[in-house]
Amino acid sequence: MQRKAIKVRHIWIGGEEPCICAPIVGADDEQVLREAEEVCRKRPDLLEWRADFFRMIDDQDRVLATARALRSVAGDIPILFTIRSEREGGQPIPLDENERERLLAAVCESRTVDLVDYELAYGDRIADVRRMAEQCGIRLIVSRHYFDGTPSKETIVADMRAAERYGADIAKVAVMPKSPGDVLVLLQATEEARCELSIPLITMAMGGLGAITRLAGWLFGSAVTFAVGNQSSAPGQIPIEDVRAVLSVLQTYSR
Amino acid sequence: MQRKAIKVRHIWIGGEEPCICAPIVGADDEQVLREAEEVCRKRPDLLEWRADFFRMIDDQDRVLATARALRSVAGDIPILFTIRSEREGGQPIPLDENERERLLAAVCESRTVDLVDYELAYGDRIADVRRMAEQCGIRLIVSRHYFDGTPSKETIVADMRAAERYGADIAKVAVMPKSPGDVLVLLQATEEARCELSIPLITMAMGGLGAITRLAGWLFGSAVTFAVGNQSSAPGQIPIEDVRAVLSVLQTYSR
Repeated sequence: MQRKAIKVRHIWIGGEEPCICAPIVGADDEQVLREAEEVCRKRPDLLEWRADFFRMIDDQDRVLATARALRSVAGDIPILFTIRSEREGGQPIPLDENERERLLAAVCESRTVDLVDYELAYGDRIADVRRMAEQCGIRLIVSRHYFDGTPSKETIVADMRAAERYGADIAKVAVMPKSPGDVLVLLQATEEARCELSIPLITMAMGGLGAITRLAGWLFGSAVTFAVGNQSSAPGQIPIEDVRAVLSVLQTYSR
Repeated sequence: MQRKAIKVRHIWIGGEEPCICAPIVGADDEQVLREAEEVCRKRPDLLEWRADFFRMIDDQDRVLATARALRSVAGDIPILFTIRSEREGGQPIPLDENERERLLAAVCESRTVDLVDYELAYGDRIADVRRMAEQCGIRLIVSRHYFDGTPSKETIVADMRAAERYGADIAKVAVMPKSPGDVLVLLQATEEARCELSIPLITMAMGGLGAITRLAGWLFGSAVTFAVGNQSSAPGQIPIEDVRAVLSVLQTYSR
């Protein structure tokens, strides 16, 4: 099946070219904005605000004010808003699931961001998030993170299939490989899901073993690679400059 | 099983670091030596003299004289001597199999080269080549090239297993992928053969689709990548400078 690329502001996700997304992990508004300024100078295609790192995440007004300020720093760079749960590699936060969902709703309504991430593990709650994101014209990434290993190829494909069924605009799966074989399982699952599904995919194997997937995953169907602009948000992320150098070689010779 | 790295002059093949091998495809002695001079300035780990491109390949004295001169240009860089057969991607040559084998013997005896390549398809003839190479202290690569497609993972592993059984010091398989899935088959076969066999392996998927295997195949067990110093000898080879830039990023972040 032909993947449908989606347009977010001026960039295409899931088209011919891979996108580079730089995380922002500041603990307060000053840090978030300072990081964003540095990161934007490196011209990533996307910014991800990892709001689980934000110490005042339980202060909705503060989150919205910071989101507005971030929007202004980011200019036309699309922003992905993510509250990663602790069990999938995020920071501990003082919000329960209802509070998290209300915050996501408020951020969507503020229209300061372009995409939100929500985890597959929330199951039927995804429908609510899907609805409110859609109403605000915001794209939904449904994600699954395996921090302790790599499930079977079939499980990874099934996760992405489930994400699509829940209405995701983009499906994301991250695994932690223990061997080079695990890295190939992740790439194979990506390749199979690309053939089967009709939404863009984001996949990666984390850590040093998985570094190759952050550089070459797009050849097998991963539309976005997370790279370090200023601070890393997950194991194995590579600086934007190095990612870009490798992508440039691959894009030249992979044709 | 632990792969045994082998030492050829000052370099290790099959150790922690991938080796870069640059082909020499000159049609006469002057071209061969001029190419070699240019290529050696780029400090490849190995040179491959693709003697099937040499117009005077049926003149043994000429071949030996050129090999001696090449040795002198190469200094301490190991030289691989290859007469690639036409059916496996080489140039047409006026030698039959007996004449080819006699030429290989003469080149081995001259001790001007460090490794010779012989094709798996020659079957039981490999034993002769194996014996004469061993007597001269020269390493044997047993190779198989699929220019029209990618066989199954099992076939690729079986080829490398057969190469080891025939006494190869190094097993080599090249395939022509028609899809990203074929590229993953080649990498998986490499990974499996690395676990099973005890000799170093060289694998690649050719053409643009396979470019990633020339850059990252070593992560899965391919000990040598063929890169362009001056002239390409097979589809999809990437210039040494670009290969080195990508290897450097991968080596930094794959740990």
